[in-house]
Amino acid sequence: MPIALLPSERIDDLLTHDLRIIQSDEVFSFSMDAVLLARFASIPPRGRVLDLCTGNGVIPMLLTTRTKAAIEGIEIQPRLADMARRSVAINGLQERVIIHEGDLRELYKVEGHGVYDAITVNPPYMPLNGSDLKLNTHQAMARHELGCTLEEVIQACVRLVRTGGKVSMVHKPQRLVDIMSLMRQYRLEPKVIRFVHPRAHMEANMVLIEAIRDGKPESRLQPPLIVYNEDNQYCQEILDIYYGAKEGKS
Amino acid sequence: MPIALLPSERIDDLLTHDLRIIQSDEVFSFSMDAVLLARFASIPPRGRVLDLCTGNGVIPMLLTTRTKAAIEGIEIQPRLADMARRSVAINGLQERVIIHEGDLRELYKVEGHGVYDAITVNPPYMPLNGSDLKLNTHQAMARHELGCTLEEVIQACVRLVRTGGKVSMVHKPQRLVDIMSLMRQYRLEPKVIRFVHPRAHMEANMVLIEAIRDGKPESRLQPPLIVYNEDNQYCQEILDIYYGAKEGKS
Repeated sequence: MPIALLPSERIDDLLTHDLRIIQSDEVFSFSMDAVLLARFASIPPRGRVLDLCTGNGVIPMLLTTRTKAAIEGIEIQPRLADMARRSVAINGLQERVIIHEGDLRELYKVEGHGVYDAITVNPPYMPLNGSDLKLNTHQAMARHELGCTLEEVIQACVRLVRTGGKVSMVHKPQRLVDIMSLMRQYRLEPKVIRFVHPRAHMEANMVLIEAIRDGKPESRLQPPLIVYNEDNQYCQEILDIYYGAKEGKS
Repeated sequence: MPIALLPSERIDDLLTHDLRIIQSDEVFSFSMDAVLLARFASIPPRGRVLDLCTGNGVIPMLLTTRTKAAIEGIEIQPRLADMARRSVAINGLQERVIIHEGDLRELYKVEGHGVYDAITVNPPYMPLNGSDLKLNTHQAMARHELGCTLEEVIQACVRLVRTGGKVSMVHKPQRLVDIMSLMRQYRLEPKVIRFVHPRAHMEANMVLIEAIRDGKPESRLQPPLIVYNEDNQYCQEILDIYYGAKEGKS
């Protein structure tokens, strides 16, 4: 079945497992954040996995290479949910990945409480106060807390994940205290934390956090993930993540 | 004036500014944690600075090389407070450093609320539950939350520091979520965070946190501080911190 591309859209390679994805610089393109989260997250071999704020579905598609679980994504913007569904179809993954179009705050009413074994989320990073909203609507919703706040994302996670289930998030280090405090408040205990630094001598610009619902308080701080080496090249670990070298083809 | 050494005590060099310090493997010896905190903390050039859980006074003595502020330390164990006072005397710093012997939870009753411009603290790391208490009393109190809990330490800090004043703490990454949540709860906003990794590819075993009383929520995550390089030698930054190279002699 041929897949229609809308104006401004293109098909990119995901660099691993021959996956392809529809992107658009005007509407939505995934970033390194999503790729790192899709590798960082602990994903069960079976069961149900959910990706919140799924955008063009990059995380669900990458997760198909790591698990035989049923994978779902939810996206509030119809334009992006449609892109994600067409990307799923391009890769013939309709049996493995379901894209919901809707509000993550309402999903538990349809799917029920505690039904997912793992959740991933790459939420909008910027709080509304003081942020620059000159972006177009699609990009603004993906980047700013227009559709839902960080607290609402965490609340949705705790409703949707089972006790002992894992929630993995990528965010900005500036929000670290917000994330830790809210997660604990909602009984999602942060257990594994990793910071991403553009270079070894630079401040972190990304944080990866895995929390366990009703987990015991005690966190591990993984080695720093450095993106570029001193020769301005991607570090080996970044190449391994992008090309799936360590896990191999499944 | 000759300074008496008690059995098991020795005098060590602090490696910087010709400072010397009384230590005892049976009672108390400072660790790298204290040295890193003494360099990490933002210290005002003048005013009043306080070190909680000061032990043998290593942090107050190191801070004399960085500021002309009046420096105080408080230690609950008479044996350690006495060691600290003798070390202060050995270095002729009696005019610069005052060691209080007492309970940090009570200090605000004597000194008043919000009287310090900056506070440092290297508190006991281990919560009481499930920890091994076969150590002697001096070491047990320095390592375990026997004398005060993390929450009591943070409560003491917020009582003693002025609005806009800084509180710097070194602790274990395992307690990160406890620290972030409690600091925010008590209106000490974590602003600068740095993790210490024994080697670049190992998990962090120490975290340095600087909070501002009533600060705006937004944290910066500094580059990782790596202790050993691939040749099993101290990294240059660690050498600079120990030998005071970057700041030079004052």
